[in-house]
Amino acid sequence: MQTTIGQYLLDRLKSYGVQHLFGVPGDYNLAFLDLVEDDPHLQWVGNCNELNASYAADGYARLKSMGALLTTFGVGELSAINGIAGSYAESVPVVKIVGMPSRGVVHSRKLVHHTLGDGEFLKFYNMYAEVSVAQTILNKQNAQSEIDRVLGECFLHKKPVYIGLPVDVTHIPIETYTSSPLVTRSDPKILNAFLEDAQELLRKSKSQVVMADYEVNRYHLNQELKHFIEAVNLPLVSLAMGKGVFDETHPNFIGVYNGILSDARVCSLMRHADCALLIGVKLTDSLTAGFHYIREHHLSIQIHPFYSQIGEKTYDDILMQDVLKALARLKFQASFPKETHPKTPHLNGKLTQDKFFKIIQEYLRPHDVLIAEQGTSFFGAISMVLPSGVSFIGQPLWGSIGYTFGALLGTALASPDRRHILLIGDGSFQLVAQELSTMLRENITPTIIVINNDGYTVERCIHGPTRQYNHINMWHYSKLASFFDVHLAREVVSFQVSSVAGLREALCVAQQSSKLALIEACMDKDDAPILLKKLGALFGAQI
Amino acid sequence: MQTTIGQYLLDRLKSYGVQHLFGVPGDYNLAFLDLVEDDPHLQWVGNCNELNASYAADGYARLKSMGALLTTFGVGELSAINGIAGSYAESVPVVKIVGMPSRGVVHSRKLVHHTLGDGEFLKFYNMYAEVSVAQTILNKQNAQSEIDRVLGECFLHKKPVYIGLPVDVTHIPIETYTSSPLVTRSDPKILNAFLEDAQELLRKSKSQVVMADYEVNRYHLNQELKHFIEAVNLPLVSLAMGKGVFDETHPNFIGVYNGILSDARVCSLMRHADCALLIGVKLTDSLTAGFHYIREHHLSIQIHPFYSQIGEKTYDDILMQDVLKALARLKFQASFPKETHPKTPHLNGKLTQDKFFKIIQEYLRPHDVLIAEQGTSFFGAISMVLPSGVSFIGQPLWGSIGYTFGALLGTALASPDRRHILLIGDGSFQLVAQELSTMLRENITPTIIVINNDGYTVERCIHGPTRQYNHINMWHYSKLASFFDVHLAREVVSFQVSSVAGLREALCVAQQSSKLALIEACMDKDDAPILLKKLGALFGAQI
Repeated sequence: MQTTIGQYLLDRLKSYGVQHLFGVPGDYNLAFLDLVEDDPHLQWVGNCNELNASYAADGYARLKSMGALLTTFGVGELSAINGIAGSYAESVPVVKIVGMPSRGVVHSRKLVHHTLGDGEFLKFYNMYAEVSVAQTILNKQNAQSEIDRVLGECFLHKKPVYIGLPVDVTHIPIETYTSSPLVTRSDPKILNAFLEDAQELLRKSKSQVVMADYEVNRYHLNQELKHFIEAVNLPLVSLAMGKGVFDETHPNFIGVYNGILSDARVCSLMRHADCALLIGVKLTDSLTAGFHYIREHHLSIQIHPFYSQIGEKTYDDILMQDVLKALARLKFQASFPKETHPKTPHLNGKLTQDKFFKIIQEYLRPHDVLIAEQGTSFFGAISMVLPSGVSFIGQPLWGSIGYTFGALLGTALASPDRRHILLIGDGSFQLVAQELSTMLRENITPTIIVINNDGYTVERCIHGPTRQYNHINMWHYSKLASFFDVHLAREVVSFQVSSVAGLREALCVAQQSSKLALIEACMDKDDAPILLKKLGALFGAQI
Repeated sequence: MQTTIGQYLLDRLKSYGVQHLFGVPGDYNLAFLDLVEDDPHLQWVGNCNELNASYAADGYARLKSMGALLTTFGVGELSAINGIAGSYAESVPVVKIVGMPSRGVVHSRKLVHHTLGDGEFLKFYNMYAEVSVAQTILNKQNAQSEIDRVLGECFLHKKPVYIGLPVDVTHIPIETYTSSPLVTRSDPKILNAFLEDAQELLRKSKSQVVMADYEVNRYHLNQELKHFIEAVNLPLVSLAMGKGVFDETHPNFIGVYNGILSDARVCSLMRHADCALLIGVKLTDSLTAGFHYIREHHLSIQIHPFYSQIGEKTYDDILMQDVLKALARLKFQASFPKETHPKTPHLNGKLTQDKFFKIIQEYLRPHDVLIAEQGTSFFGAISMVLPSGVSFIGQPLWGSIGYTFGALLGTALASPDRRHILLIGDGSFQLVAQELSTMLRENITPTIIVINNDGYTVERCIHGPTRQYNHINMWHYSKLASFFDVHLAREVVSFQVSSVAGLREALCVAQQSSKLALIEACMDKDDAPILLKKLGALFGAQI
């Protein structure tokens, strides 16, 4: 088929489900943007800056099968690299496209703008190689094979890839051939060996626990996980990075694991279990109370997307999806004590962190998207019991503050029919606040709750509770929307609340209005979720 | 002397003139921040985000002899890397300090937050190695020698350096010895040989021109340049990156060189000169109308900070400062046609780009700091004739949009007794707008003029004049200050103007008020400085 290199790239992105392209225009990508703007099946989302754009692409990719981001060379791509590093750390499939100077400029090492003025054009490519699984610079000869390859790697590994598109390459016509799609298959012999060994271990053990984490979400294997859990009746805890991986109202869901800071039911289960099945788990400090485990499980089974392990033994080339399906056919039945979740007590009076998260929990409905910024928001939210089908988004490993605000733009565009609720602290919000402008322009209608506690409370919990450096300027958060858009300000509902009744009323109006809602929820400076206070003390002891 | 590693670093920074440290707190740098906050001779400037902080440190370093920036590991440092790359490209001495995880965490490759979760701790260090001249990670053994070395390299090369400070290293006591300062000297034999060859070339030539650029500014050799020019009576043009390098009201100043787009007087001078003396020059596309030179000067002398060239011959190990002093003693006298600068015509009516820059020129006073964002602002401002002693700041090589707004915070803190005037477009302003919050908190009183022309006009000049992707959301720019600060809003004067009279009045009030002034200057979408229109057409032809 006859097409152009730029258009082929767009067509392949669309084949992976990409319908929006985030980024900032710049003179090295304008020619490509013409194609984007003219494509009826793609929407360009011009962000206020590149870092926010990279967060948006990440949020988008967490709900869809891929996200994409376009910047210009040098300046634009380096502004976005923190966001891409976050996608790499937390395994999110984002395609980073950069408009590059023309091949002639590169070959003759010209001192052009947006370079370091040293004739070097591969430095930024090299930087991106540290935080992406595949990289390429397109030309007439390699375009189709390279586009196919890097997008395939992105989809396979759920990690970012980097595509350099020189400004003179975009419109080169190419004749495309039929690509063979990437096919992944488990090795049946290894799979059988793994299953036999796993079954033996499970039967030998007296008490078992499943720990499920983010990789299940990234590979969209939540249904497979559910079938397995129901078939064998194992109790499950999730890790905070994978919160929402399993229906939290399900009788087999016990709670979120937080090392020695886990709640009583999780602690008891973990302490008694002599065999742990870790499905898509990465044990990082933020998820384990700083590596303070309840119990180290030597008899453990680890299942990852492309390999599994039992103890020290590795089983390569077996896919998580096949492993979960096969495990569901195991001849094994576990048993564990059942318990119903406690009802929320009656709340009123001044808003506190403790009450805040209970009210948000009441407000949640099945299939909402709940996004919680690393800080008080995240550590408060992970203790909430989510309704069935809620997608939970946070960034506990990379932990770039401000991430969730950009991510919200992405999730809202990725799933316009769901409710999107963001919890973010004032400190984090200040890093990225202008992206509200893009949200207004795109007519998305999330509920944004800014927790105003006058500074970096997450840091105050760790170190320097009374230090000036943890203080920030006080903004009129609830009035922000009226400034970021001359034309659309009436499409917003804004509130400043500091009581239980005020927050409830604001949420009620937000729910009924079908408009973007910005709620400034004022709480005490030193108030924090109990989990964060304890975790802060553990982390602070290391400083 | 007995001190700690963290305090030694601060003391050495202060010895280079650093009085402010920019950045964002994070748990890996909080211990170090305690020292900063407790040091009576240092001020912590907490920015809204790290990119803005890196711009501020760059602006600060352009007026002082060094700037410094502190972030946390991974997330913070990657958010700042675009700003540091800009400092590298444009030779600005910025010290990037990063609070790192403890050495124990690194040695045991723990999966901690703010990492990629792969046990790798040198990836970000490697990225920074691409955009800095020296890098180090401090420990008890190397602390003093490494701090001395990297700060010395920063000061010598006027380029960024990178210092990793593990969280457990900050408070380690060390016994310091007396450091020997870095001494730079020219080789007298090479200097003599250069002078003889230069004198011969100058005498052989019929007509000469001096082109002076940014390196003279970075090494603060403006007085030496002036003495040389006056001694030999050579005509001088500056390049836009070094605009302000030489008193523009001086009779020997001809104008700013812009390749074939230079004004008539510069063109005539360049066309007739058969010998060019390039002092601290880098010929990049933005400064040369995209490499469209008026005349290629084969008989040229190039003078750089540590070497010079005549034609193809290089003279190493001679310092620009010594070369300029020696050249001033040359037995040579040039002559060239003198001309007085035209008076500004009478202006009124609707504000246009053409009138705008003439009004700003009238407003400028000796020793002001004028900062112009890459875009309409920069390309309009470089045609202005600056009063004596004005510092001009732009970023034409790296060209990261939004840079100047952060840089303004830095310049205003670096030189509190001068007037600081920023010209920035609406598109650029949106990337970094929240830093207004920091300016209000720091009580600086610059005049900020936001050119509101409804989008990315610099890009419209290059490609896609009617495309949606060059459109941005319209903000209430003039009202922003009232809401980035609950407490200090009254300390601001704000205006929205669209006429000559309105702008003049706003500037008059700004001048009298001694408050931060935010002026939204509305101009037509398609209006642009004539130089930018022509340059855009040349650049656009390459797409």
